[in-house]
Amino acid sequence: MEYQEILRFHGHACPGLAIGYRMSLAAMDALDAVRSSDEEIVAITENDACGVDALQCLTGCTFGKGNLIFHDYGKQVYTLYSRTTLRGVRVLFHGKGIPPELRGDRNARAEFILNAPAEALLSVTEVVVEEPERAQKRASISCAGCGEEVMETRLVDVEGRSLCIPCAERQK
Amino acid sequence: MEYQEILRFHGHACPGLAIGYRMSLAAMDALDAVRSSDEEIVAITENDACGVDALQCLTGCTFGKGNLIFHDYGKQVYTLYSRTTLRGVRVLFHGKGIPPELRGDRNARAEFILNAPAEALLSVTEVVVEEPERAQKRASISCAGCGEEVMETRLVDVEGRSLCIPCAERQK
Repeated sequence: MEYQEILRFHGHACPGLAIGYRMSLAAMDALDAVRSSDEEIVAITENDACGVDALQCLTGCTFGKGNLIFHDYGKQVYTLYSRTTLRGVRVLFHGKGIPPELRGDRNARAEFILNAPAEALLSVTEVVVEEPERAQKRASISCAGCGEEVMETRLVDVEGRSLCIPCAERQK
Repeated sequence: MEYQEILRFHGHACPGLAIGYRMSLAAMDALDAVRSSDEEIVAITENDACGVDALQCLTGCTFGKGNLIFHDYGKQVYTLYSRTTLRGVRVLFHGKGIPPELRGDRNARAEFILNAPAEALLSVTEVVVEEPERAQKRASISCAGCGEEVMETRLVDVEGRSLCIPCAERQK
């Protein structure tokens, strides 16, 4: 996907999206991977900032496909794993080469990030990744409270009745 | 966004994506809303299945923007809230009008879902939604272990040292 398409998906331009774009490109290059149409690539992101939208667009690791895993560590790190080659790569954004005078200027910072040499922005390390489980499909069962369908693994037993989580919480 | 673009984002065609497409369209219509370039719309999804990729594409409520909230209830429900009009709408996919003979045929089922009248597939209810908090920006601080930058709210104190979560877990 071109950056323009990613911008359209995200909805606006910002330095964070540019960061995710460069991190994702670096990871895909290092893995020599193509966009994941199913679950060939798995991405573990250690933040939920703007850049993850570029990660979704570029890698095909999307929230809806189950190959985007979120570790809420607050770090500018993506780890990508290829189920095809079994290789893993960790990309850390450090931004050490960003001129300090750009700090107050979001547009100039985003522009710099999009065009700077990779080593001014990030590091890439080969890592061993334990293969993440694939997304599972589960049967649906009606909640004994509201009657709505619920994935069977999310039903809660409340005094012998199988309830969805919202119904179970209303019983408390 | 057109369905073709959503397909490209998701990576493949499937009934789940068609479900999310119809649910998202119904929600946006009911709210009379346009795609969220920032956080004007908030979506609460009660599952993390394929359809959420259509939700991200159509509503602009994306993982990276912080206006996609995940409640892991295993239900085919999206609740959308407009920060502009303060209105909320709950869309439940029931699929009651899907002919049973399509159960084994993914392509025919997806096609049916894309074209069926809304009432054969889903219900839409106006609901009161408590306004969700906006995404917060936080300062970054170096982890005293690995030296990598960490969002300040994700640092963990381990015997007087401020560590990132992975470093803190290695201390255990």
